[in-house]
Amino acid sequence: MAAAVAERQSQIVLGLDPDPLRLWPEAEDAAAGVLGGAPAARAAAGVLAHCCAVIDAVGDAVVAIKPQVACFERLGAPGWNALGATIAHARAAGLLVLADGKRGDIDVTATAYAQGFLGATPGPDETSIPGLGADALTVNPYMGLDTLRSFAAVGRAHDAGLFVLVRTSNPGAADLEDEPLARGGTVWERVAELVAQLGAEHRAPQSGLSDIGAVLGATRPEHLARARELLPHAIFLLPGVGAQGGRVEDLAPAFAPGRAAGLVTASRSIVRAHEQDGAGSSPADAARAEAERLRAAAWALG
Amino acid sequence: MAAAVAERQSQIVLGLDPDPLRLWPEAEDAAAGVLGGAPAARAAAGVLAHCCAVIDAVGDAVVAIKPQVACFERLGAPGWNALGATIAHARAAGLLVLADGKRGDIDVTATAYAQGFLGATPGPDETSIPGLGADALTVNPYMGLDTLRSFAAVGRAHDAGLFVLVRTSNPGAADLEDEPLARGGTVWERVAELVAQLGAEHRAPQSGLSDIGAVLGATRPEHLARARELLPHAIFLLPGVGAQGGRVEDLAPAFAPGRAAGLVTASRSIVRAHEQDGAGSSPADAARAEAERLRAAAWALG
Repeated sequence: MAAAVAERQSQIVLGLDPDPLRLWPEAEDAAAGVLGGAPAARAAAGVLAHCCAVIDAVGDAVVAIKPQVACFERLGAPGWNALGATIAHARAAGLLVLADGKRGDIDVTATAYAQGFLGATPGPDETSIPGLGADALTVNPYMGLDTLRSFAAVGRAHDAGLFVLVRTSNPGAADLEDEPLARGGTVWERVAELVAQLGAEHRAPQSGLSDIGAVLGATRPEHLARARELLPHAIFLLPGVGAQGGRVEDLAPAFAPGRAAGLVTASRSIVRAHEQDGAGSSPADAARAEAERLRAAAWALG
Repeated sequence: MAAAVAERQSQIVLGLDPDPLRLWPEAEDAAAGVLGGAPAARAAAGVLAHCCAVIDAVGDAVVAIKPQVACFERLGAPGWNALGATIAHARAAGLLVLADGKRGDIDVTATAYAQGFLGATPGPDETSIPGLGADALTVNPYMGLDTLRSFAAVGRAHDAGLFVLVRTSNPGAADLEDEPLARGGTVWERVAELVAQLGAEHRAPQSGLSDIGAVLGATRPEHLARARELLPHAIFLLPGVGAQGGRVEDLAPAFAPGRAAGLVTASRSIVRAHEQDGAGSSPADAARAEAERLRAAAWALG
């Protein structure tokens, strides 16, 4: 991860959360070309063409993609194939892949999810069923450290990492994540401690960064300094810039251990930049300009 | 749900978490019959045959199936098709379907997951892309009430419910769920309050039960009485009986508001009953006997 950030001079992660009704025009043509197909197959063709077009437009300005699994999964098997093909397209462009699935479950089930996203599943007759080949998966900590450990075990066997939800960017994060604990600190600070504990087991020799990262919403930058104290070696994945109101300029504490220690995700602000653009740019040109603006703003902080 | 429990005289939910390497013998034959197929297609054919065979064996003793989404998802698009076909088979047998996906995410993403499991996705040219048609989905509360509300909105439009993780059955539940809060109570009790708040908005006229249920591990029955105080109208989904050590006999508080207020899930203890069975019964006969034993034990409590 650190090497990719240095090589591409970018800490920007392109979020892909395609809505079949809001695709770029060229992708709508691709969907229309699936003649006689079921709605799911047509929508999945459009979603794939859209994601590939976005990757082609902004790939030079970003270090990774973050496909939102829900947006593919809801299209069924064709959607799952579109997710795999989107990942392959990103890899061919030299990008890392952070699957945003926010999975969480116990032992064998956590292992099954990790096999599907990061590893492979043992199949009949000593075959192996390849997973999606993502470099990292977002996971949910509610059920405790043993559940995170099952994900990490598969990840570590396949050179892949995790990003654990710590303090998210939505208003409802206050309902539980911000609750003060009797022992001191908040629920999210307790989660940060668990993440630090798991992450201490595996750090990259060169960068010193751990393979267990943390999701921290960019909408509440006052939390970043505290999170950095608790997690000195974790990569922070920072959603919430743009549409949700977060600003790149406020994220400096995330980058304290090094440029690769903070990854800024942006989805709608890039993909729908043309809707905000008075100059009438094409979707691709507007997206490229916005991604490059974010890249330069983040790089200047590091 | 209450009507189905009364009609079938069962509160047992059949958990399906198929491992391609541990299928019933007849299912292995089905997988072998997919000549020349990719490993994922062969494994998915075996998984589907296995799930259908298990449903055929124990369907009369259970009220619902609970497919573990991870176990299908890791097989890619063929696995997703197998999940859809398993659900269709269960429906044809008159069973309800509780999709165990433990999803959790913000606004539009939560909506996308709910569309995929409980509803439908608007597609191009005013088409509609059907979801899996489950009657309920398990969801994770970590990110707060607004995220649960997005799931509930789709569910309510499609006559489907949610089961929110409250106090789970794994040892790691102690790491976060059991943490005492400064305001009093624990993290899981705070989640129970949020579930009660959301559930109060929608209760069935006849049974009085809410459409927002709670997942409570059967491994710690001392929590059930407290959970019932906090959630008088919620259906409890109770995993952890059997392989994880929970006993049906300890679950009486769950059933206090009525028989349909507690659903006992069992997976491996049913599907692998023949491995514990000294009499050399077939997998189907052993599974049927164990499911019927659980059914009678739970019904006797209610």
